Amino acid sequence: MNGEVSDLCRMGAREAVAAIRAGRVSVRELVDACLARAEAREGELHAWHCLWPEAARSAAEAAGSGLLGGVPVGVKDLVATSDLPTACGSPIYQGHRTPGDAACVAALRAQGGVVLGKTATTEFAAFTPTETRNPRNPGHTPGGSSSGSAAAVADFQVPVAIGTQTAGSIIRPASFCGVVGLKPTFGTIEYAGVRSFASSLDTLGAFARNVGDVALFIAAMASWPELTRIEPKPPARVRIVRGPRWEAVTPEAEAAVERAATVLAEAGVPVEEAKLPEEFDSLVDLQDRIQIYEGRRALAWERTARGELLSEGLRYHLDRAGTLSFADYRADRIAQVEWQRWADETLTDGEIWLTASAPGEAPEGLTSTGDPVFCRVWTLLHLPCISLPNGVGPRGLPLGTQLIAPRWKDADLVAASAWLEARLG
Amino acid sequence: MNGEVSDLCRMGAREAVAAIRAGRVSVRELVDACLARAEAREGELHAWHCLWPEAARSAAEAAGSGLLGGVPVGVKDLVATSDLPTACGSPIYQGHRTPGDAACVAALRAQGGVVLGKTATTEFAAFTPTETRNPRNPGHTPGGSSSGSAAAVADFQVPVAIGTQTAGSIIRPASFCGVVGLKPTFGTIEYAGVRSFASSLDTLGAFARNVGDVALFIAAMASWPELTRIEPKPPARVRIVRGPRWEAVTPEAEAAVERAATVLAEAGVPVEEAKLPEEFDSLVDLQDRIQIYEGRRALAWERTARGELLSEGLRYHLDRAGTLSFADYRADRIAQVEWQRWADETLTDGEIWLTASAPGEAPEGLTSTGDPVFCRVWTLLHLPCISLPNGVGPRGLPLGTQLIAPRWKDADLVAASAWLEARLG
Repeated sequence: MNGEVSDLCRMGAREAVAAIRAGRVSVRELVDACLARAEAREGELHAWHCLWPEAARSAAEAAGSGLLGGVPVGVKDLVATSDLPTACGSPIYQGHRTPGDAACVAALRAQGGVVLGKTATTEFAAFTPTETRNPRNPGHTPGGSSSGSAAAVADFQVPVAIGTQTAGSIIRPASFCGVVGLKPTFGTIEYAGVRSFASSLDTLGAFARNVGDVALFIAAMASWPELTRIEPKPPARVRIVRGPRWEAVTPEAEAAVERAATVLAEAGVPVEEAKLPEEFDSLVDLQDRIQIYEGRRALAWERTARGELLSEGLRYHLDRAGTLSFADYRADRIAQVEWQRWADETLTDGEIWLTASAPGEAPEGLTSTGDPVFCRVWTLLHLPCISLPNGVGPRGLPLGTQLIAPRWKDADLVAASAWLEARLG
Repeated sequence: MNGEVSDLCRMGAREAVAAIRAGRVSVRELVDACLARAEAREGELHAWHCLWPEAARSAAEAAGSGLLGGVPVGVKDLVATSDLPTACGSPIYQGHRTPGDAACVAALRAQGGVVLGKTATTEFAAFTPTETRNPRNPGHTPGGSSSGSAAAVADFQVPVAIGTQTAGSIIRPASFCGVVGLKPTFGTIEYAGVRSFASSLDTLGAFARNVGDVALFIAAMASWPELTRIEPKPPARVRIVRGPRWEAVTPEAEAAVERAATVLAEAGVPVEEAKLPEEFDSLVDLQDRIQIYEGRRALAWERTARGELLSEGLRYHLDRAGTLSFADYRADRIAQVEWQRWADETLTDGEIWLTASAPGEAPEGLTSTGDPVFCRVWTLLHLPCISLPNGVGPRGLPLGTQLIAPRWKDADLVAASAWLEARLG
């Protein structure tokens, strides 16, 4: 029985939907298997802010139809849920209850998703780490800010989980934990009911253990059923992006990008090096300034009325933003829109940009969630991106390779990623 | 004593700050005067969702410094407040409390603003009217969705109040109530903590009884002190915009626009007719589709779990959105960005577009908040706009004329509006 339960929790989302539909598995069995796995592993990994077995089991009774008919789901603890507290990774909101579900949670529940609990997030999805450990090696960070979601999916506790990305909070933890992370085009999934940090950057997305599952989950949250029917297809053209700040890359992460490029080239896809404009590196700082300026504004109440409950690390970044004026911010927002236009004109239809998801393997220790340097610019530009597991590094930890598509070409991104995933092995 | 109180409540925001600083008036006296006025008039006008005299008086003890040092403020009941409930104009949220203040409320409080209470909003700032009446004639609508804020400012209950605009929810009620309404460039004031309806349109702004006061209030909420030091200045160039859907305009609203144009032309400002592209009228529908699609998404929980508590009118619009697909929405968002680029290229530096704020005077009755047709496009394009009182119509009700500036040129808009305001009398 225990062995059977442990196998069930390894089911992917599409596999689970099919098994439930065919009557081979009940929603309750699946939910119990995932709960058992999560509870058994929580003491070591700390992937969850809270698990609520009773609510999940009671939701399991009702679920079974819809795109996600019965699939257990992890919800990042930045996202409001009517039946579970939402603490946003902050002592200020310990035990905080909201009357309703965030729009994305209501959408996934309407499609039969079963919320297992809230996954650990860094404080307000910013910089201060959680206690969550990397399931591949608990001495290493799982990445952040969607730390718990990435870890729970990688550890077979749920097949899919919600993430958000403002700098690199989906792509980086997906890479570190060896799962697929998809940050769709900005605005694809409704943000209402999710705590915002930097509203011109914050993007909802998801984790799964394969591309088809992550597409299914995004499809459910975005009410975009067509996304579940995308067939694997190589891109029309690929450019390798060695930047920005490519000096941060490790040889193994770069080699992984090149391995993916070789696979594509050998299949006849035209692959060339992207020529980046000289100012491209400055976009990293542009993203950072917008993030901290908007974060400082968004946390105005917490800063002024509950400042003593903010972490030192977060206060450092918010103080840093205090040196920026409204005129600085306005100039940065104008530049953001101009660079988005540049990207719209530079990335052609069917084209995919290929780069590293992170500089390398997950760093050791839990004092930092790692460097989002290879994610910041794509978030700034509102482009859809995905991290695919692509081999391991010298410490035996996963490496991730990132694919980026033109704005709103998420379907092409899914098609190309599914095609590549099957060939990276 | 009563007469004195009644005079104090007529003070504008800048006037009040100066009087408090000079020791001629105490914050407590001012707050009491405004509360007395609000309480005396509430039975007839219904401008407030709730007034909280105790909290206001206790805040008055602490206030006195900052840009708003001691100014009484009305907060639209869509905006979270730590000490007052936030019902969003919906029975679903009756009595709902949030742990903290929305970012804009924290910002205005940090600048010495004193929250008097929450002003009435239509249901989720959408289409279903409140009980609020127009202070100029209680048989007429004050406009919406920021109905209570516009009415409270027009009726001398507060010198300034918060509004939000997704279609025409600041400009239209400002016009109908005969006050100044300013919707700044999208993103000028942080939206965190405000209930969102359509996140690519929702914009925070404000009402006051003159341009300098509204600029002061925006400056405080946006942490943009420079905006308080803008001097009145005529624009470099003016274009009269007769559209979109100009057939809706009444002769008196058009005459008001022409009166403003004449004032400008006589001062030597180049004034000409704007040449609008043929497809310009279609932007009204584009804005409407984005608004209802995003609104349907944002209200996913309310629709699925509390549908019986939504008004029939709101359900009609959300059902209408149910016929739109994700692909329709994506195409609309791409078109929105393209038209924003068109506006950025078409409106030159220092240029102001002049049009009507609304088709005419406030309609009779409370069954509709009036037509936002002359506001939708400017909200869609994220352009800053202001409504200035400009004479009265045949029923003796106010008319408003709208000034529109290029994106992020809010300071130019304030300068031009202040200059014109002084000459419209």
